[in-house]
Amino acid sequence: MPEVTISRRFDFSSSHRYYREEWSEEENTRVFGLCALPNGHGHNYTLEVSVSGEPDPATGMVINLVDLKGAVDGVLINFDHKHLNLDTPYFSERIPTTENLATVLWDEVAAALAARPGIPDGWRLARIRLHETEDLYVEYFGEPA
Amino acid sequence: MPEVTISRRFDFSSSHRYYREEWSEEENTRVFGLCALPNGHGHNYTLEVSVSGEPDPATGMVINLVDLKGAVDGVLINFDHKHLNLDTPYFSERIPTTENLATVLWDEVAAALAARPGIPDGWRLARIRLHETEDLYVEYFGEPA
Amino acid sequence: MPEVTISRRFDFSSSHRYYREEWSEEENTRVFGLCALPNGHGHNYTLEVSVSGEPDPATGMVINLVDLKGAVDGVLINFDHKHLNLDTPYFSERIPTTENLATVLWDEVAAALAARPGIPDGWRLARIRLHETEDLYVEYFGEPA
Amino acid sequence: MPEVTISRRFDFSSSHRYYREEWSEEENTRVFGLCALPNGHGHNYTLEVSVSGEPDPATGMVINLVDLKGAVDGVLINFDHKHLNLDTPYFSERIPTTENLATVLWDEVAAALAARPGIPDGWRLARIRLHETEDLYVEYFGEPA
Amino acid sequence: MPEVTISRRFDFSSSHRYYREEWSEEENTRVFGLCALPNGHGHNYTLEVSVSGEPDPATGMVINLVDLKGAVDGVLINFDHKHLNLDTPYFSERIPTTENLATVLWDEVAAALAARPGIPDGWRLARIRLHETEDLYVEYFGEPA
Amino acid sequence: MPEVTISRRFDFSSSHRYYREEWSEEENTRVFGLCALPNGHGHNYTLEVSVSGEPDPATGMVINLVDLKGAVDGVLINFDHKHLNLDTPYFSERIPTTENLATVLWDEVAAALAARPGIPDGWRLARIRLHETEDLYVEYFGEPA
Repeated sequence: MPEVTISRRFDFSSSHRYYREEWSEEENTRVFGLCALPNGHGHNYTLEVSVSGEPDPATGMVINLVDLKGAVDGVLINFDHKHLNLDTPYFSERIPTTENLATVLWDEVAAALAARPGIPDGWRLARIRLHETEDLYVEYFGEPA
Repeated sequence: MPEVTISRRFDFSSSHRYYREEWSEEENTRVFGLCALPNGHGHNYTLEVSVSGEPDPATGMVINLVDLKGAVDGVLINFDHKHLNLDTPYFSERIPTTENLATVLWDEVAAALAARPGIPDGWRLARIRLHETEDLYVEYFGEPA
Repeated sequence: MPEVTISRRFDFSSSHRYYREEWSEEENTRVFGLCALPNGHGHNYTLEVSVSGEPDPATGMVINLVDLKGAVDGVLINFDHKHLNLDTPYFSERIPTTENLATVLWDEVAAALAARPGIPDGWRLARIRLHETEDLYVEYFGEPA
Repeated sequence: MPEVTISRRFDFSSSHRYYREEWSEEENTRVFGLCALPNGHGHNYTLEVSVSGEPDPATGMVINLVDLKGAVDGVLINFDHKHLNLDTPYFSERIPTTENLATVLWDEVAAALAARPGIPDGWRLARIRLHETEDLYVEYFGEPA
Repeated sequence: MPEVTISRRFDFSSSHRYYREEWSEEENTRVFGLCALPNGHGHNYTLEVSVSGEPDPATGMVINLVDLKGAVDGVLINFDHKHLNLDTPYFSERIPTTENLATVLWDEVAAALAARPGIPDGWRLARIRLHETEDLYVEYFGEPA
Repeated sequence: MPEVTISRRFDFSSSHRYYREEWSEEENTRVFGLCALPNGHGHNYTLEVSVSGEPDPATGMVINLVDLKGAVDGVLINFDHKHLNLDTPYFSERIPTTENLATVLWDEVAAALAARPGIPDGWRLARIRLHETEDLYVEYFGEPA
């Protein structure tokens, strides 16, 4: 069987702020612009999770979408309707840019899939695509093996 | 000349929180769900502003889009990348629901258009459509004359 | 308080067939084209439900979206992943065109909202918009009072 | 039977220029901006044609989409891949703004539907919605009766 | 000349059912959920076909879109407005999942392009992307050479 | 730090014509169809520019979007609201197909990014995706190193 890649889209809404405490106000504004404003702002994020593998001959599936949705929903409950800087543990040192959030979500989704019991072998997490707006998105393919 | 309606879409990103101080924590959560969380969350809003009138025979325009864009951009600079509860004066008493935000934006856009010099007569603000997400939007047509 | 209209989008997938038993094969094909094929075909429908009213001063809501979603989800469970002709009771006489499906969904959504306990007064069902494809949709505003 | 409105979307691509010969270069640029440039520019237009009526009890249709598509395709063949100022007769005096193009298309579509043989009675052209870009569109509802 | 990839989107509507006759009812429901319901359901599929190659210096084209559209339309006529299980020969053993349908469409499109007379050399089928819904899609790149 | 790819979408509107002077009228029409018509037509193009690299640990960015937007806007000012054949120097010999326009835009964007002062190292232009319509797009990844 040939390898295919299946992707599913998920939505969540969060707020965030770009700011480095060790920088001056001016430096924060110069680098981060409006994103440095103190009370933050937010987005409707769209997360696309892609899994590659050979479809199972019996089910025709790379991965059962019930499993994929279960794992990703379990991750996104910690991000949806939250403030990324204040309500999650990932951005005390790192700025919650789309780039950094994409790699955080890769790690969380990979761990949630690995921890979910009963998913048959034969798949691998292949790509995370994270849209911050309709016009801006980041792709991450994991660390090279 | 017959009347037509021209609509232009604008984007902005804000955060907000639904919470009534005079209610208990439980009541806030019962009514507002995840929107009551303390640090807020955010959205990519899409605002559609519609203006009706007879196209000017010389220009073929109901309103010059330079004027429409200028007026609306002047309004949205106060909402984009802001926290609606903390950074704007409109939501100390009112909850920043899509419903309430739509009527606030109507008033602000109407005032900005009225204050802009040099717009020829013959148009009226006809509709505000405000998308909070792809799946949720509010329409407001102003108060009946 | 002025009246606003809030709309929420829902998705479901169904199959259907256009066919009148009392017509000849030729007549069915002449009128319904490929839609008359015996084994049916299907669509990803998008249903937009619009409710009008004055936002409640305390909550800023025309209707709590938990109630709207609860009522509409309760309706769509009978249509999603179903064959409209074979699995629902509405299309034994009527053809399941987008037009007819829109009026069926209006009746079902109106009944589900009326039957849901605890929704405060002050709203009315204002519009149903049903997309059969990205390029084809029907609007229905109910019967004139 | 209640009245419903059915809408179908059509695409075409044209170029155009905004320019009044009797105005100075400066006046054209002041009013029309980049649209006054001599060699024109273009758009992917999206035309939505809406027809209202009571669905026929036998067919469930306000109008057979074969008829609607046939009539509108017969109109758009004169606009698609054309220069609106140079290749159509409508814009020698009028500027091809989205406003003016919408009213021209209303007249053309209304005439094409009226001229098409065999469409059963009971429908009326209800709305033209013309998108020039994703962010700009015009609605026209015909002249008041 | 450098290699580029050109992609064109096509739409079709089909119905299908996920069910293995050799499995119990319970097993079918456990694995396939609502997709196992007896009368099937359907989708508006979107097929994106991508072809790579060096643009011809004279025409600026990797492949003439008339040829690409002709070949793909000739394939999709066998899927559009059909029931994938009952009206096509591909799914008597295989489940018509998006994964399996994508590989079937690759084979059919590749064969149709190879059989079409007069397409100049220099292109190769590079990717099939098949959307079952807005939120779910499969990519297939063919078997490794 | 792992490598990620960030993409931003830009819009512009242009007109063009496909025609080779050294070919007969018949040959031009046979190959280019409606695109050979003398007065041209136009599109709303969407350009997606993708840049890859390791996010800077301090800023969380592969490239500051102010720099990316500045560079690309500086390129697109020469294409927006222009006639590609008549108003740009790139298509006297080459046909302005989406394929050829994509490679031209790669060269221009790469040069504009290289010429912009103050962009920290660590990024590379990774992909150009150019949409001519919603249904047609070209991807270009540059010449192999």
